[in-house]
Amino acid sequence: MKGIIMIIDGMADRPLGELGGKTPLEAAQTPNMDRMAKLGVNGIMDSIKPGIRPGSDTAHLSILGYDPYEVYTGRGPFEAAGVGVEVRPGDIAFRCNFSTADENGIITDRRAGRIREGTAQLAETLNTMILEEDIEVIFKESTGHRAVLVLRGEGLSDQISDADPKHDGKKVKNVIGLDDSPEAEKTAIILNKVIQKSYELLKDHPINLKRKQNGEPPANIVLPRGAGAVPNADPFNEKYGIKSACIAETGLIQGIAQIAGMDIIEVEGATGGVDTNLENITSSILQNASLDYDFLLINIDGADEAGHDGNLEEKVEFIEKVDAVIGKVMELEDVYFILTADHSTPIAVMDHTGDPVPLVIRGPDVRVDQVNQFHERAAANGGLCRIRGSDIMNILMDLMNRSTKFGA
Amino acid sequence: MKGIIMIIDGMADRPLGELGGKTPLEAAQTPNMDRMAKLGVNGIMDSIKPGIRPGSDTAHLSILGYDPYEVYTGRGPFEAAGVGVEVRPGDIAFRCNFSTADENGIITDRRAGRIREGTAQLAETLNTMILEEDIEVIFKESTGHRAVLVLRGEGLSDQISDADPKHDGKKVKNVIGLDDSPEAEKTAIILNKVIQKSYELLKDHPINLKRKQNGEPPANIVLPRGAGAVPNADPFNEKYGIKSACIAETGLIQGIAQIAGMDIIEVEGATGGVDTNLENITSSILQNASLDYDFLLINIDGADEAGHDGNLEEKVEFIEKVDAVIGKVMELEDVYFILTADHSTPIAVMDHTGDPVPLVIRGPDVRVDQVNQFHERAAANGGLCRIRGSDIMNILMDLMNRSTKFGA
Repeated sequence: MKGIIMIIDGMADRPLGELGGKTPLEAAQTPNMDRMAKLGVNGIMDSIKPGIRPGSDTAHLSILGYDPYEVYTGRGPFEAAGVGVEVRPGDIAFRCNFSTADENGIITDRRAGRIREGTAQLAETLNTMILEEDIEVIFKESTGHRAVLVLRGEGLSDQISDADPKHDGKKVKNVIGLDDSPEAEKTAIILNKVIQKSYELLKDHPINLKRKQNGEPPANIVLPRGAGAVPNADPFNEKYGIKSACIAETGLIQGIAQIAGMDIIEVEGATGGVDTNLENITSSILQNASLDYDFLLINIDGADEAGHDGNLEEKVEFIEKVDAVIGKVMELEDVYFILTADHSTPIAVMDHTGDPVPLVIRGPDVRVDQVNQFHERAAANGGLCRIRGSDIMNILMDLMNRSTKFGA
Repeated sequence: MKGIIMIIDGMADRPLGELGGKTPLEAAQTPNMDRMAKLGVNGIMDSIKPGIRPGSDTAHLSILGYDPYEVYTGRGPFEAAGVGVEVRPGDIAFRCNFSTADENGIITDRRAGRIREGTAQLAETLNTMILEEDIEVIFKESTGHRAVLVLRGEGLSDQISDADPKHDGKKVKNVIGLDDSPEAEKTAIILNKVIQKSYELLKDHPINLKRKQNGEPPANIVLPRGAGAVPNADPFNEKYGIKSACIAETGLIQGIAQIAGMDIIEVEGATGGVDTNLENITSSILQNASLDYDFLLINIDGADEAGHDGNLEEKVEFIEKVDAVIGKVMELEDVYFILTADHSTPIAVMDHTGDPVPLVIRGPDVRVDQVNQFHERAAANGGLCRIRGSDIMNILMDLMNRSTKFGA
């Protein structure tokens, strides 16, 4: 038996007047999800706990069986892992902007004219940086003006302030330790040096000389923020005794899977938006389910994007498109297939909320209940009642008969 | 948006033969509560956890988002706060009796003839007490022969024994430390002195000379019991970023609200019994909801009293009277209104039990379910399924859009 958890990011919602009091999921035509509800056991799920507003990152950590209050040290480490830096426990990771500074250290453009090209070369140059301290410096470009920075070495701390002044026209902020530890002091000193050196390495970089020629602001400094220590997460595969992979569209979720030690499957055309290539995602799921993976984590992101945009029509439409994916995945045999969301992203709120999400488990011998539609309210009458994200892997491993008995 | 949590103390019950297998809440005519169930999302709630018999104090702590296993150090601190002593974290608080001792230290009447008058003057005199140690001694009368004592200063402990011998004809008990700490030893020595000095200050007090003249036993000694350290509870308003007030009838609940740092609203004629003035309570709720409070905690106590008395008729009747209050509160606009109980006080048990209680949330965009009656069994079919007291503030803050997202 294999296990699949498919998370339709931000799919759950609240009743809407425009829909006659229905939620987008209630209003959408989802024959496959409804069939799954009918054939499975349903419930509502709080990915962290009732009323807590989860990020997608903390929700996924919880669903994978990690305590987010323990392992979530901020977005930096997961972003870094998500763009492909092989982070290690203890590394200090930052989200960065490529920015434009003048010769007095005043930031004239925090996003360096929203630079789109050449950041890979800039990062490559930054990676030649050598410090007196025995600390490795790893830069990696992300999308647009975004990048990540990882500091690796002994005696570092994430208890340091941000360099990013958050507004144009201000000086680069001097980084300081946020506690009295020598580790924080040391890391702050190093980070200030890294920022200074980034300016030295980038100011006359060929990419920037060309930008200046074109009248574009040079990406001549790097501004780190949101320091987070890479957590020491138990390897997922060891924890559950399985071989696992993740098919996700965003770096954030890929980063979580990578820190958990899962294989990351890239899908061409997966944008993380409502325009994503669901055919390619479907093919990737079916193909990888036929390989020797015991477990697949799947995240499809478009419904969340539509929720954040407050775009009702797009949300309903995207849910209906995702329904076709569910139909294909349901054809797989010998699989326990769990369909859920990581959190609600109500159209009316345009951000995540703590409302519980519907969840259905389909597979051999589950206690099929009387629920025959897949949505927020129907699920509340299901046989699972109300569970937490942290319960899901335990339930799945039990169904897959991979649990060990606690006691005699 | 504002939030109101209304707790009908001890309202929930068990099915009764006399009611043809209905609970008092099922048997009562409660059109307003039922309308609220119909318009809201329902569930059952364990104020601490399933099967745990909560006190009203521990239940309210939990509902307000405090872990009672952490902050509940006994009834003393909450009683002291409830009678108006401005307790501070670290204070050691006691419940006390004014009692009658003979010259040999034998307690001849633990309740000093159930003294009703003059205790304020006695407490005033006791407050002149000066110890060699740098410890402040605060007495405050409560109802009848009851009082509270607070010791304030460095190096005190609540790990000390009671002075109250619990039976007439016995000597005042020598207070001892319950652990080996120097703090407990010090506090025990101080408390023994306080008791000795209370006798010295009260034995020839004018109030007592008059009592002797009238043939009444003098209230010439104070017997403390139930030492509890005032907990360091996070201020409620800071914790949730709101301005809050409490309308409660009993000192115990007022004390909890006071230790949490909420404003306390007194209501004339609020007795805490079935004879309480519900009109005044209703007016107070409506009036304070129109002020700049974001949140009101309301406790109405009569149903619990009827439950403790095993008086079925009074319990049903009181629930029906409370229903009118609900009707008025439902008229408020832009409010998330939560109606529940803190625990069950079954007629047949005449004490609190651990049965879950019904809960309904009414307000904009809640996932209205199919429940259309407010009682223990209907609520179990609701969209909230089964939650805990500790979930309530998180759910309310999420609905009020005052939550911050945990993660990205």
